[in-house]
Amino acid sequence: MEAQSEPPQRGFPVSEFEERTARAQRLMAETSLDALLLTTEPEFRYFSGFLSQFWESPTRPWFLIVPAAGKPIAVAPEIGAAGLDATWLDDIRTWPAPRPADDGVGLLVDALKGLATVHGRIGVPMGAETHLRMPLGDYTRLRDRLPGTDIIDAAPLVRSLRMTKSEREIDKIRHACLIASDAFAALPEQARTGMSEREICRALKIDLLARGADAVPYLIAGSGPGGYDSIIMGPTDRTLAGGDLLIIDTGATFDGYFCDFDRNFAFGEIDGDARRAHDTVYRATEAGLAAARPGVAAEAVWQAMWTVLEAGGAKGNDVGRSGHGLGMQLTEPPSLMPSDETVLEAGMVITLEPGMTFQPGKLMVHEENIVIRDGKPELLSRRAPTEMPVIG
Amino acid sequence: MEAQSEPPQRGFPVSEFEERTARAQRLMAETSLDALLLTTEPEFRYFSGFLSQFWESPTRPWFLIVPAAGKPIAVAPEIGAAGLDATWLDDIRTWPAPRPADDGVGLLVDALKGLATVHGRIGVPMGAETHLRMPLGDYTRLRDRLPGTDIIDAAPLVRSLRMTKSEREIDKIRHACLIASDAFAALPEQARTGMSEREICRALKIDLLARGADAVPYLIAGSGPGGYDSIIMGPTDRTLAGGDLLIIDTGATFDGYFCDFDRNFAFGEIDGDARRAHDTVYRATEAGLAAARPGVAAEAVWQAMWTVLEAGGAKGNDVGRSGHGLGMQLTEPPSLMPSDETVLEAGMVITLEPGMTFQPGKLMVHEENIVIRDGKPELLSRRAPTEMPVIG
Repeated sequence: MEAQSEPPQRGFPVSEFEERTARAQRLMAETSLDALLLTTEPEFRYFSGFLSQFWESPTRPWFLIVPAAGKPIAVAPEIGAAGLDATWLDDIRTWPAPRPADDGVGLLVDALKGLATVHGRIGVPMGAETHLRMPLGDYTRLRDRLPGTDIIDAAPLVRSLRMTKSEREIDKIRHACLIASDAFAALPEQARTGMSEREICRALKIDLLARGADAVPYLIAGSGPGGYDSIIMGPTDRTLAGGDLLIIDTGATFDGYFCDFDRNFAFGEIDGDARRAHDTVYRATEAGLAAARPGVAAEAVWQAMWTVLEAGGAKGNDVGRSGHGLGMQLTEPPSLMPSDETVLEAGMVITLEPGMTFQPGKLMVHEENIVIRDGKPELLSRRAPTEMPVIG
Repeated sequence: MEAQSEPPQRGFPVSEFEERTARAQRLMAETSLDALLLTTEPEFRYFSGFLSQFWESPTRPWFLIVPAAGKPIAVAPEIGAAGLDATWLDDIRTWPAPRPADDGVGLLVDALKGLATVHGRIGVPMGAETHLRMPLGDYTRLRDRLPGTDIIDAAPLVRSLRMTKSEREIDKIRHACLIASDAFAALPEQARTGMSEREICRALKIDLLARGADAVPYLIAGSGPGGYDSIIMGPTDRTLAGGDLLIIDTGATFDGYFCDFDRNFAFGEIDGDARRAHDTVYRATEAGLAAARPGVAAEAVWQAMWTVLEAGGAKGNDVGRSGHGLGMQLTEPPSLMPSDETVLEAGMVITLEPGMTFQPGKLMVHEENIVIRDGKPELLSRRAPTEMPVIG
């Protein structure tokens, strides 16, 4: 049941973290930042290598400081000490958390004040697709204790760092995609008319784990006669019957990196409208594959796909975009949509996800995962079949 | 393989959301709030019933407003419309997200300005164990567009609402605990010397799903000769050998509610120190069970357990507490620790999690899930065996 190819090595060599830190510090110098303050799991992990499921607990804040020079500094709950000692970091400062009266703020102030002050500016991600994972009250207290320090938005900096993946990162995403490709291909053997969405998804989730996925944080289903109306809800106890369409979308992980793609299945027979809609989103994906090249803007890839969807009778798309970045998170920048002018570069991993409403209340969505390469993109997911598999 | 008892019904009747909203509005009146603004998944779900895995995507913010009277108002990405239409909410305002230039802020300002203004005060959770799940820059813009409105910390209000569970919530947690109790009991049949932590955890995760868990967002392992040094890392590829101790901690969910407890296993033989440490944390849990009564402070339950741990040779505890609330999240308030003066009430669901360092670098942690009842607490997890199971 294991995926056929050997899984890539877990973790990263220290050189990977040194390169990430050096790239960050070059950008910090360009934007006159003395430090970067990070509070969210992917950013903490990106610079430290600290991979723990413990972020599922919202109780304790975790902080990582990237100084203008030298290794990042962790300011973290004591419970994380053993795990952090195993990373490449040297400067690990812990407190006995939870301690609501001072949950790391004092340590954080000391650490930031201990850095060389050249510009009097610290970067914190504040822009689109970010949030601050610490109590807002503590953030206010932190700012009050750093008078004279400007705190500016570091979202663009972090975004530009993380958007382009290293080959080692791509290897992990590719492996997650391989596992999901194999599991989706085997699904028709496990599913049948009369099973519920929930039963089918449970079988798929178990199969993904058996094939080597570490976790399956995202696995949804939508179904209905001749179409589905949502791609973010479910699975429900709805039973699949002849004439139904089923979509399953999955984000499975390997070593902290996601795949994210969906597959459509027909039960009994496929009606003409659904068949045409599936053909349209398939061809839209082809247009996306043809457009996705280094130097091309994200919005241009969207346009290439939307032209096909519109010609195929699309009545809109409430997903809001036709693909997005992918990596340590299920969805990352950029967005394939009008107004996203991000220029694609070799090494970016994105989804092509053309979707459309083809009848009132009926969606058809397709998705593949690719890495931008010089020339043609590399498909990470195994290309979906041109026709929806039919399950009896 | 399914858990023996029938799973509880999914979802909640509308009356449950009406009661939650009414309780919130009574507390809002007491604290002179015109509205509550919520951005995080558990809070959004608590008042709306909207249960979706889509929160795994960090791209789009979601907002819920609880007004001083009437049903909550959702301000949400268009992709959520179909799912939200199926909830008890009537007022659902959507925008085509992602739209970085205005990701819901304009709609949110309009919705808040449309409410009756009595106190000029809005509550946003800002205290311990909370965070704001929207870009910090957008929050600043929101505040700037609400001049004359005070935004105050609503963490204590939300905390007091969510800490005490309804019987329907308890049913879901109990079911998650039953599934995990059965799976832990069956683990010695699946595990053996020579398997890695990762292989054992994968088998357990699959078993949890097969028995009816919806998801397993948390499943960690720690092991080592005669003890383990962390309860938040792993599983790793470390192979279990005779003389090893293994802890597995799991947070599995049923219908959006967590169990959270661990079990210890010995491989080959158990050494005397580990046996004594296990006996100590077992007896500390008994002391916690004897102390956990309505009217007793969280810190007093900690004290009851710590007294046993200290007498048993505890050299400290880097977990920082000896238990915590549990429900829609893996960990919730209160904390069983010194300085947490939360008074226990019937209906609170908590973990008893006494842990100690019994030798340098060696931890022993035990955990059960209980609900506070008039008189003795109800055990939700099946009580761990008095002696660690020994795996050959």
